[in-house]
Amino acid sequence: MINQTKITLVGAGPGDPDLLTLKGLKAIQSADVVCYDALCNEALLAHAPNHALKIYVGKRANQHKMKQSEINLLLVQYALTHGHVVRLKGGDSFVFGRGHEEMSYAESFNIPVEVVPGVSSAIAVPELQGVPVTHRGISQSFWVITGTTSSGELSKDIALAAQSTATLVILMGMNKLSEIVQIFRLHGKIETPAMVIQNGSLPNEKVAVGTIETIESAVVAHQLGSPAIIVIGNVVGLHAHFAEMAYTSNDETWTSSFEITTH
Amino acid sequence: MINQTKITLVGAGPGDPDLLTLKGLKAIQSADVVCYDALCNEALLAHAPNHALKIYVGKRANQHKMKQSEINLLLVQYALTHGHVVRLKGGDSFVFGRGHEEMSYAESFNIPVEVVPGVSSAIAVPELQGVPVTHRGISQSFWVITGTTSSGELSKDIALAAQSTATLVILMGMNKLSEIVQIFRLHGKIETPAMVIQNGSLPNEKVAVGTIETIESAVVAHQLGSPAIIVIGNVVGLHAHFAEMAYTSNDETWTSSFEITTH
Repeated sequence: MINQTKITLVGAGPGDPDLLTLKGLKAIQSADVVCYDALCNEALLAHAPNHALKIYVGKRANQHKMKQSEINLLLVQYALTHGHVVRLKGGDSFVFGRGHEEMSYAESFNIPVEVVPGVSSAIAVPELQGVPVTHRGISQSFWVITGTTSSGELSKDIALAAQSTATLVILMGMNKLSEIVQIFRLHGKIETPAMVIQNGSLPNEKVAVGTIETIESAVVAHQLGSPAIIVIGNVVGLHAHFAEMAYTSNDETWTSSFEITTH
Repeated sequence: MINQTKITLVGAGPGDPDLLTLKGLKAIQSADVVCYDALCNEALLAHAPNHALKIYVGKRANQHKMKQSEINLLLVQYALTHGHVVRLKGGDSFVFGRGHEEMSYAESFNIPVEVVPGVSSAIAVPELQGVPVTHRGISQSFWVITGTTSSGELSKDIALAAQSTATLVILMGMNKLSEIVQIFRLHGKIETPAMVIQNGSLPNEKVAVGTIETIESAVVAHQLGSPAIIVIGNVVGLHAHFAEMAYTSNDETWTSSFEITTH
């Protein structure tokens, strides 16, 4: 006797296990199988019942990544043999998460699928650094783009984004950072603020802040690697990094004018 | 003796109270004051301690909306007089939420501010309708734009979005729907799928699905009003609405060919 066959796609949020939703928590608590990957915080598995299988479906060092078609099939098999399968994904399942492919595949076997939205890293990770993707008077839109398209090439949308007033958020783009920077340079935007965040929302979070001109050297200086989130746009100028610079520079101005008035 | 002075900006998610994060829940549970507005589900107030004040800071019928400067000041006053203030906002505080303004203002009084990201309606509301903002082979980016800019005019980014391959998500755009549709028509995109969702994630959710050509009449037919979320792009073609249409049309094709082969 197994639980009712069902698959729930749960967005686990950016990394901090407390950024899971209550609905996501309830799903995990009633899971017979949890299939998770590299971007999920493994602390979330502790919410699953003792009897639940915990299946890793991500990439391991020295091993091939499981293909999407293999994951799709695995979810269906476990649902039919074990009952309630929770598919736990970093961020939100429908933001570059291939969640819809898993949903369609399972539905083609007549298996009920529920989707539980998660906190997307694209918004939350800059936010936790004090940078809003939109801000009145600075940016009235944001554009979220993958750096790694299925063809392997950089998305043409990045050139269009460089001409817009949108805040640009690039996921999976670290190995294309030089190309991205070059596009913004070509559009004369070398002074546009830019930041890169690795392990956002986690205790080992790392950040590099600068401008299009300086961001690549900042990334090297702070030893950031993949996966990381790249944010480009004037809203990044709200980061404390720039406030400190402005404070220092105002202070110098004040000192100079003080000297002038006393001489 | 009051709790330590502190302000926590909590994103409440799109409406379903179970789409609050665990971190957001803990913040509300330790609040002395909760300031909430129209887009928050009032069911969330039940998580607050009995002693906590619940202050509505949104728009009421026949009353003026509280100005942002008044809200900023209120948060600071309550933090200084009552301790821990939770500012509860629909969706995420940093997505058209003016959360950064509240944060900066409070920090200028040396009051500690924490931000708890929420599930953004921009992603979650289409997702709950089965529409992913990105999908391999269909859309490798999404662009979130406000329909109502601070100047009152339609954002110029919408014309740029109409030329991109991005999924376009427009918040607060219902009173500009005709203008938006017109821009897509001018770019020859009358067949692009489009949908409008009101009260997303709630029991009274309403949806209109169609194309640029038909979406305005679908909105009228389903009696949708503000606030609602507009989604334009080929990913909307993944909505069940289109699958049903394709099924009907395939079925007819099959019938025709059957007739041909038997005659």
